[in-house]
Amino acid sequence: MRNFVFHNPTKIIFGNDSTNKVGKETKNYGKKVLLITGQGSIKKIGLYDKVVDLLKKEELEIYELSGVKPNPRVDLVREGIKIVRENKIDILLAVGGGSVIDTAKAIAAGLTYEGDVWDLFTKRIPIKPTIPIGVVLTLAATGSEMNGNAVISNMDTQEKLAISSPYLYPKFSILDPQNTVSVPLNHTLYGIVDILSHVFEQYFDRTEDAILQDRFAEAIMRTVIETAPKLAQNPEDLESRAIILWCGTNALNGIIGVGKEQDWASHAIEHAISALYDIPHGLGLAIVFPHWMKYVIDVIPNKFANFARNVWGIQGEDDFEVGLKGIDKLIDFYESLGIPTNLSRIGINNERLEEMAEKATKFGPIGNVKKLNKEDVYKILEMCL
Amino acid sequence: MRNFVFHNPTKIIFGNDSTNKVGKETKNYGKKVLLITGQGSIKKIGLYDKVVDLLKKEELEIYELSGVKPNPRVDLVREGIKIVRENKIDILLAVGGGSVIDTAKAIAAGLTYEGDVWDLFTKRIPIKPTIPIGVVLTLAATGSEMNGNAVISNMDTQEKLAISSPYLYPKFSILDPQNTVSVPLNHTLYGIVDILSHVFEQYFDRTEDAILQDRFAEAIMRTVIETAPKLAQNPEDLESRAIILWCGTNALNGIIGVGKEQDWASHAIEHAISALYDIPHGLGLAIVFPHWMKYVIDVIPNKFANFARNVWGIQGEDDFEVGLKGIDKLIDFYESLGIPTNLSRIGINNERLEEMAEKATKFGPIGNVKKLNKEDVYKILEMCL
Repeated sequence: MRNFVFHNPTKIIFGNDSTNKVGKETKNYGKKVLLITGQGSIKKIGLYDKVVDLLKKEELEIYELSGVKPNPRVDLVREGIKIVRENKIDILLAVGGGSVIDTAKAIAAGLTYEGDVWDLFTKRIPIKPTIPIGVVLTLAATGSEMNGNAVISNMDTQEKLAISSPYLYPKFSILDPQNTVSVPLNHTLYGIVDILSHVFEQYFDRTEDAILQDRFAEAIMRTVIETAPKLAQNPEDLESRAIILWCGTNALNGIIGVGKEQDWASHAIEHAISALYDIPHGLGLAIVFPHWMKYVIDVIPNKFANFARNVWGIQGEDDFEVGLKGIDKLIDFYESLGIPTNLSRIGINNERLEEMAEKATKFGPIGNVKKLNKEDVYKILEMCL
Repeated sequence: MRNFVFHNPTKIIFGNDSTNKVGKETKNYGKKVLLITGQGSIKKIGLYDKVVDLLKKEELEIYELSGVKPNPRVDLVREGIKIVRENKIDILLAVGGGSVIDTAKAIAAGLTYEGDVWDLFTKRIPIKPTIPIGVVLTLAATGSEMNGNAVISNMDTQEKLAISSPYLYPKFSILDPQNTVSVPLNHTLYGIVDILSHVFEQYFDRTEDAILQDRFAEAIMRTVIETAPKLAQNPEDLESRAIILWCGTNALNGIIGVGKEQDWASHAIEHAISALYDIPHGLGLAIVFPHWMKYVIDVIPNKFANFARNVWGIQGEDDFEVGLKGIDKLIDFYESLGIPTNLSRIGINNERLEEMAEKATKFGPIGNVKKLNKEDVYKILEMCL
């Protein structure tokens, strides 16, 4: 196990009707709140009106930034920074999924930087202390509700890049399973892929003795795999929604990743795909991950054997063979939920593979299990076709 | 799953040589530090000198409170409060195990209360904001390094009682596996029992749908059970020490307990035993828990079957029968490590059972799986003989 620092100060408020606490929690951080939202689905389910009412009840002054899209754009971040500066906003309140939260984080980060916010993503400039962020989560997937990371896309440069800072942890995140019930089934399932993929990035690495972290990771995988089919059958089941919601947060709040090397190549590859084709992040990950796994299994066959044995209950002596069966089980699992695991199935052919491979390795080789250069990524993308 | 709030802001600094950060971390909270220590074992291993040097390097003004005993006493807490008040201490630094940390927490709690600190334990008076606490942990067991709980004994009244408050979370805890290597084997093993017992208190309850929390709990149990025999064979193995250390923290930092009813009767029974006989807490728990389990298994046979199947790999159809085998496995495990699981084996006979049962239920029935009254506790204690 490597040395690590674990410091996750986000306050999680979990459970049905926990949304009711949004007014009082927000008020702890000031008078002027910028409400950041997506493309209107929260209005359809009545959540928008509910949140606005609760904020008004606490006499908060509400400003708004709406229209955040999946693969959120830096243009809207710039707009948000302008609103916050002009109106001296005290706190950002993100009501939505990962895209909305990440937009809030990027606004917060950009606010205390003098140049253009996109510099923070391309030049890896350290982020300074900034204004607080609150969250009302509407989708189980991102993990952004309990970490300091944000991923933003720049359509001008066709880049999708991440920032990370201790100053970007939300002060509070409200996780009310009721707010996730109306998410359409396909996006619920992409969220589930996202959750599993976050686990994979941390679980499949070369660290040998982070035993508890790996058992925790298996706990999340088993819980998700057991619960997802129930949810697919009955998308309105609040208990299943609650279980998946809590899995999503724990998949990326640090507890399964501390002391581990981790990998994260598959996310870089997926970001290159969705920067070019604007597909849902979870869908891209369902396609990339199984093929990445097959490309690197020879380096850590024992880890893949653990995955096969402890998550899927596969028996057998040979780590490599058992591990391969585990990967096949994962593919079967995704396909059984109707999630495609090949690019050709979503209309992407081999035309721009070169460009994607270039983009994914723009800052140098990616990943740790194998250091992947452009040629490696190209091969993995070919396998994905 | 029940609604919950999870907010654990303690900064964990984990790994070999992380002790070197104690000076800089402490300095973040002021100039005057009260160094709280136990009965001298940290002097033998050189940790005392090291910490003092590091504090002096940051020009901190050091005051001292030493001599904290296992089952820490309220008298020393009172002495600590006096020192802090007289010298306007800025931060408490606990260097030791659970007893030392809990003494620091009780001092912090008593400081902002006008009456005698013991009132906070007996009258359940809410604790007010107070001065910060830092920790250098020397024993894997308590979990106190990452929660807001403290347990203190009063020898005048022969009581052992707990307090809990959001204001008592340590600001930082340094978990350096090297600091745990010199702990004698028997106390290392009692620490391991303590860790498992914390898991049991949260795992064995009536909450049906906290699936992830239960898989997390099983992850800790499996990791401890796999690692403990290695550690017993080679007490100087730093990797095993590190794994157990991180298990201890996660067993009581909230992640396996949130959204669950939990039980905690066994701890109350053990506290009654060690208030009268001053035995190590872990030893008492190794005796109480298996017998409590047998007393309550009929209420939640499915939970005991999960324990048997997922932790011990026991197969079988009937939950009750499989569950009983799991309890027997636990007894075998403790005995294989040389830990006694009966009172008579440590020289305690039936003379004061009545008194213990009375003490354990002083504030009313205990536990949740079964609400245990005095007669129930007496029966469990008889089973423990």
